[in-house]
Amino acid sequence: MHVVSIDQFDKDALFELFTKTDQIKEALTSPSGRKKLAGKHRDKQICTLFYEPSTRTRLSFETAGYKLGFGVVSTESAGQFSSASKGETMEDTMGVLDGYGYSAVIIRHPETGMIGRAAKVAKTPIINAGDGAGEHPTQSLLDTYTIYSNFGRLDNLTVTMGGDLKYGRCPRSLAKVLAKFDDNHIKFVSTKSLAIGQDIKDFLKQNNTTYEETSDIEKGVAGSDVIYWTRLQKERLDEKDKGLAHGFIIDKNTLKLMKKDAIIMHPLPRVDEITTDVDDDPRAKYFEQAGNGLLIRMALLDTIATE
Amino acid sequence: MHVVSIDQFDKDALFELFTKTDQIKEALTSPSGRKKLAGKHRDKQICTLFYEPSTRTRLSFETAGYKLGFGVVSTESAGQFSSASKGETMEDTMGVLDGYGYSAVIIRHPETGMIGRAAKVAKTPIINAGDGAGEHPTQSLLDTYTIYSNFGRLDNLTVTMGGDLKYGRCPRSLAKVLAKFDDNHIKFVSTKSLAIGQDIKDFLKQNNTTYEETSDIEKGVAGSDVIYWTRLQKERLDEKDKGLAHGFIIDKNTLKLMKKDAIIMHPLPRVDEITTDVDDDPRAKYFEQAGNGLLIRMALLDTIATE
Amino acid sequence: MHVVSIDQFDKDALFELFTKTDQIKEALTSPSGRKKLAGKHRDKQICTLFYEPSTRTRLSFETAGYKLGFGVVSTESAGQFSSASKGETMEDTMGVLDGYGYSAVIIRHPETGMIGRAAKVAKTPIINAGDGAGEHPTQSLLDTYTIYSNFGRLDNLTVTMGGDLKYGRCPRSLAKVLAKFDDNHIKFVSTKSLAIGQDIKDFLKQNNTTYEETSDIEKGVAGSDVIYWTRLQKERLDEKDKGLAHGFIIDKNTLKLMKKDAIIMHPLPRVDEITTDVDDDPRAKYFEQAGNGLLIRMALLDTIATE
Repeated sequence: MHVVSIDQFDKDALFELFTKTDQIKEALTSPSGRKKLAGKHRDKQICTLFYEPSTRTRLSFETAGYKLGFGVVSTESAGQFSSASKGETMEDTMGVLDGYGYSAVIIRHPETGMIGRAAKVAKTPIINAGDGAGEHPTQSLLDTYTIYSNFGRLDNLTVTMGGDLKYGRCPRSLAKVLAKFDDNHIKFVSTKSLAIGQDIKDFLKQNNTTYEETSDIEKGVAGSDVIYWTRLQKERLDEKDKGLAHGFIIDKNTLKLMKKDAIIMHPLPRVDEITTDVDDDPRAKYFEQAGNGLLIRMALLDTIATE
Repeated sequence: MHVVSIDQFDKDALFELFTKTDQIKEALTSPSGRKKLAGKHRDKQICTLFYEPSTRTRLSFETAGYKLGFGVVSTESAGQFSSASKGETMEDTMGVLDGYGYSAVIIRHPETGMIGRAAKVAKTPIINAGDGAGEHPTQSLLDTYTIYSNFGRLDNLTVTMGGDLKYGRCPRSLAKVLAKFDDNHIKFVSTKSLAIGQDIKDFLKQNNTTYEETSDIEKGVAGSDVIYWTRLQKERLDEKDKGLAHGFIIDKNTLKLMKKDAIIMHPLPRVDEITTDVDDDPRAKYFEQAGNGLLIRMALLDTIATE
Repeated sequence: MHVVSIDQFDKDALFELFTKTDQIKEALTSPSGRKKLAGKHRDKQICTLFYEPSTRTRLSFETAGYKLGFGVVSTESAGQFSSASKGETMEDTMGVLDGYGYSAVIIRHPETGMIGRAAKVAKTPIINAGDGAGEHPTQSLLDTYTIYSNFGRLDNLTVTMGGDLKYGRCPRSLAKVLAKFDDNHIKFVSTKSLAIGQDIKDFLKQNNTTYEETSDIEKGVAGSDVIYWTRLQKERLDEKDKGLAHGFIIDKNTLKLMKKDAIIMHPLPRVDEITTDVDDDPRAKYFEQAGNGLLIRMALLDTIATE
């Protein structure tokens, strides 16, 4: 199995993966559970092939690998792999790596679609760890799992997505996942210049998922179960919208407007769009969310290697 | 044992290594075999010390290490090791690494002869992973093994070497290895400006190995058992030879001229000197050849660590 | 337990650590001992998070990790971790890493005090692997252990420290450690412009440790048990002192002035401040000292992971 796009996971596939993720989460809490996991794939290897650095994603995958017993072969500068520097095609690179017998090759590439090309020819399972403006399916999976593990469900939720919705890969993907489930309602909170794309709105309509748009953060967070926040980069705003940027910050005051059992998510890194005094609030789940990245990647690697 | 030069392997040493390589190849085909290998050197470590990046060679060695159970300590930027940046000698660097108890240190260095210097003082086994224009013995070993595993012998073969024979490290080394065995005949196919060096021709004569030279690719490949192809870099050709470059490409038509049981080799990466429609021909062995690099390095590491 | 500063180790803590280090040293001499160590922490991981390259320190920690069975997740370019490049704080980075369940995170950072900040918030044990001009506690520990393992004691010793005592982190730290013990005498050998700081001299006085200062290397090494030498960088000397630099070299002649059972130490890398013909003298302990770095780091990691 290749993991190239979040789209390839239907409802059943998601629940199956999340059940395994729950089991791994539980196992990691005890020494005997950790030992059992670490003994599972002792005779296997994975390879991280990063054509651009993304230290956090790489560490998360590699730690996931080690916790399952894999040997982890790592490269952060795959651009210097003979391929890029000497003109080798991605197809030839895969031809070589197929000979190394990895359980999975985890690829990061700056160019959209390049990892799909790799998966098309590779006999080794390929995991997309981000291809430019394209996909980053394990990020979408960990976002979805964070909602699932907090609410026990993925339907009948009101989800607010705020910040840069135009260029942000995470909110766009999450919206598409939520549309697979029933009775979700999405509130997009942004400025006009960084609003969610029409393609996503069309997709939601086609899937009978309701949504609304606002630039009012107070109205945006009220009544929501999930507040998924991202950074509104000033340099991407047009002149008219620049004055609004300072209003897109979640702080102690914003917390008062939220539901008692809401959860606040953020793909991290965070700069100042969520103030640090929010971190101690039990609704702040962004560090838990980052930790879920490890769990999801373990579940995925374990699934792939036991196929 | 240090592995500094292909010259240190006599016929017996080659056959011994290839027998072990065959055994490892066989063991890797079954889960129980892989598990056994991965349990062999669990309490040992190897270190890759690369003074210049060579991602493919590094990945191959490190994967070989993991498949044998070694802990793998890796560096791609050994030039920043105190040595280079602060003026430490290679001898002192070895003095430090000797204290770390590695089973092997695999060194890549841009300067010819530097790895020989390391091996001269190191108590830890050193493996040369390429020193500039000098040696790259594991590449020569994997080339030789690929011929051996396809024909079951290393004598009585007609071997064509084509492309850049002047600067190419691989054909030069392979010619020297073939001269150790009886009744081989070598056909050098190149332009005048990139022809094989006189030193190699002298060496072949001294060892009673016959050869011929041609710039005609059709004549070059006909009747050969092995076609070892490399890239003819246009920028290295002189004015008179430039027009010939486009003729040094192996494609579907060239295939028709070859023997039915010939094998086509290439050290990779390949650019356009072998067209991709050749890849599906059963005679195309260059990806198998790359995979043999893993096997040879496993055999070598296992030999060194069990000495 | 975080390891941020050498100051946090009192006499008892040092002896306890050195006893464990002795045991590890002994265990590493036999295959069964090595196997036992390598099986100790198979289900655990450590992470090296280096914001600047320090290949030797990183290799030493990672090798120590592998010899104890840890999975080792490595980064040399943590500056590209979302933190630095996107403005994430060290506190947030720790928040993320806490979710990965490492037994220890080993941090190198160019900025003094940054690792203290990390340790203040991290739930994961942090080990300082050097923070700018600040601390490098495992270097101090390996220096101290080298003296201890050669003399069986840390009191009643005459210790000469020579070279750059003003900017050199190692002599400054070692002086402070020696002041914890009774009846030590320190001889500082340097030029006026690179003399030991007044803060260290005050500290020694407060702790009743005697010292003297000289720019005469012959007088400096005579009668000492330990000669701890460092490089006197010419570019750091003022005009008046420049002529003295060539005198700060330990060579065969200097050896004649030393006690028969003295030991010569150096933090390495060495350039020309100790000539290579000294290396064969049994008193030269700088490579042993580098190897002790591995042992001390193993003892420390084992202590932290079994807490």
